[in-house]
Amino acid sequence: MSDVYAARRGTLRDRCAAAGNAAALITRPANVRYLSGASPLGAVLLVGPTEDVMFCVNAPTGEVDEGRLDEHLKVSLLTSTGGDPAVAAGDLAAAVRADSLAVEEHHLTVARHRALRSVAPKLRLSDLGNAVEQQRLVKDEEEIACLRIAAEIADQALGELLESILVGRTERHLALELERRLVDHGADGPAFPTSVGTGPHSGRARHRPSDRRVEEGDFLTVCLGAGYRGYRCEIGRTFVIGTTPADWQIQLYDLVFAAQRAGRQALVPGAAYRDVDRAARSILDSAGHGEALAPWTGHGVGLEIDEDPQLAPTAMGKLDACVPVTVEPGVHLPGRGGVRIDDTLVVRPEADGGPELLTITTKELLAL
Amino acid sequence: MSDVYAARRGTLRDRCAAAGNAAALITRPANVRYLSGASPLGAVLLVGPTEDVMFCVNAPTGEVDEGRLDEHLKVSLLTSTGGDPAVAAGDLAAAVRADSLAVEEHHLTVARHRALRSVAPKLRLSDLGNAVEQQRLVKDEEEIACLRIAAEIADQALGELLESILVGRTERHLALELERRLVDHGADGPAFPTSVGTGPHSGRARHRPSDRRVEEGDFLTVCLGAGYRGYRCEIGRTFVIGTTPADWQIQLYDLVFAAQRAGRQALVPGAAYRDVDRAARSILDSAGHGEALAPWTGHGVGLEIDEDPQLAPTAMGKLDACVPVTVEPGVHLPGRGGVRIDDTLVVRPEADGGPELLTITTKELLAL
Repeated sequence: MSDVYAARRGTLRDRCAAAGNAAALITRPANVRYLSGASPLGAVLLVGPTEDVMFCVNAPTGEVDEGRLDEHLKVSLLTSTGGDPAVAAGDLAAAVRADSLAVEEHHLTVARHRALRSVAPKLRLSDLGNAVEQQRLVKDEEEIACLRIAAEIADQALGELLESILVGRTERHLALELERRLVDHGADGPAFPTSVGTGPHSGRARHRPSDRRVEEGDFLTVCLGAGYRGYRCEIGRTFVIGTTPADWQIQLYDLVFAAQRAGRQALVPGAAYRDVDRAARSILDSAGHGEALAPWTGHGVGLEIDEDPQLAPTAMGKLDACVPVTVEPGVHLPGRGGVRIDDTLVVRPEADGGPELLTITTKELLAL
Repeated sequence: MSDVYAARRGTLRDRCAAAGNAAALITRPANVRYLSGASPLGAVLLVGPTEDVMFCVNAPTGEVDEGRLDEHLKVSLLTSTGGDPAVAAGDLAAAVRADSLAVEEHHLTVARHRALRSVAPKLRLSDLGNAVEQQRLVKDEEEIACLRIAAEIADQALGELLESILVGRTERHLALELERRLVDHGADGPAFPTSVGTGPHSGRARHRPSDRRVEEGDFLTVCLGAGYRGYRCEIGRTFVIGTTPADWQIQLYDLVFAAQRAGRQALVPGAAYRDVDRAARSILDSAGHGEALAPWTGHGVGLEIDEDPQLAPTAMGKLDACVPVTVEPGVHLPGRGGVRIDDTLVVRPEADGGPELLTITTKELLAL
């Protein structure tokens, strides 16, 4: 795996050199991990003209959550306790050995930027922008394998929950139980805070679980994800509690299902992000739900649960093969509840069978 | 409660005015919450010369994790999806209605700072520094009451765990069970990732739970905390598994206990931060463990689990009454394990009975 990280840093080095920068300072944790295998708390990565150095507050321990560091990478322990940006900046500036340094302006704080400028006034600082994020967009098969395992774990946790009694239990308890099951099945941890919404809370995006209990006749929306070796997937399903769904529930479910299917089918290499969004959105829009929709119907996943691309009406760009994304339209009717259906898929050419569905739990409307 | 938030903003407004700034932009989430009662994801707070405005990506929902927003505060929904700092900066700049704005340079990113400068070139930007963090240092009785409840919850969760069978269970399972119990007892959630270390992992600060199972003869170190209405406490204890502790275990435990007691006893109003640290540290140092100690032996708690003051050899400043801090010395012997003992206390004058211990679980060496 070390070769992978060295190769990724090599690509970044070439991009920097082409833009006239001899070195780059990577501070965003997911970017640090992508380029080095690990992101210990507070660690930053210097990609230099000849040598790369990770600056750590503590020695990296190689644990699950922070990843396993590329063993060929040089590590430098910061002597400061991390509180004083000027101290760390001094250590960094001494190691740059170049006259120009690109920094992640969308992540670096003004105070740290100022400290760097002050300890190294001759160093020309420029903006690296989203260079590493762009590099992370298309995944290699090893990354996709991690996502596939993460999705399997989430499917298992969800499947087990469905076999248990749900009526009378609170959203918070169901969410905690799901998170315990994720870890039982080998996840690093939840990929994001598990969302469980019942009755009037169902169908809401990123609903924080409350103390409301599951009741007969409720819609129940569950959205969860597992992290596996740093890679994060997402699955969301809506169920109905009790014997028979009401007519409005069946109609709303069928509508969201149709929108989600249209979104999935639009996932082909070369499709514009906004066209994938439109495929799903237009179906909900035509049915009169356009106003209340979330500003996106899907997004990329990887080392972060919400990364590029964004599948949204104003998004610019086109899908490539091997880009994993969610497709997750939903409708929420205030006071009544709603439906969300959310899958993680990998964009694949039609010759390879089209989009690869990672989250395989059924999307039939189950009455539990 | 609304009056409390308005009064806090008033204090900040006065400090800003004294420094020649008509307005302040608060971006650090804990600071936003302190001044407004809530910190919805992505929200920022503008404290203006006459009017304060919270800028939100979505309407605040008043849920547990994000707090309950001061109902008198004006809320402005950002039209952007949050991805483009320039759009949000435009909305903000239009609302400032002043010629100078203090920003939190230790939190604000270079990109957002640049966007603000570019949409409002005449606005003079300066550094607010840690003004709000300093304001948060001394807690009022309502804040301390929340910390007291958080500590009670953590004590309960820990107490229940001690009654169960521990041998054979993994660190990760014990940590998850503790977190479930925290929520069962009414916590918003864990105050920080629960740490469980067994055998050679015991005694390590912030150890991430692994798949190692508890064995007879192990030291077991548990460190957990609850969040309650946003306020976070911390407790850490070390136990021995099995019938009788070994001699080295008893000696090490007694040593860390003595250091922790010395730290607690040093908590008086007016004591220098570094003297509290030294009280605990010197005992471990004299016993030959100085080299391997963490750079701090305690820290403030509140809306964040790790806030000012830092109890460390180079820390500047003195304790005030009503400042809650942890006292948490520990010794870890590589390959063998170690001991940590961690309490949350509130500094109180001697006339009021001295430091108030919030985490009351026994500190005897229990053999489980």
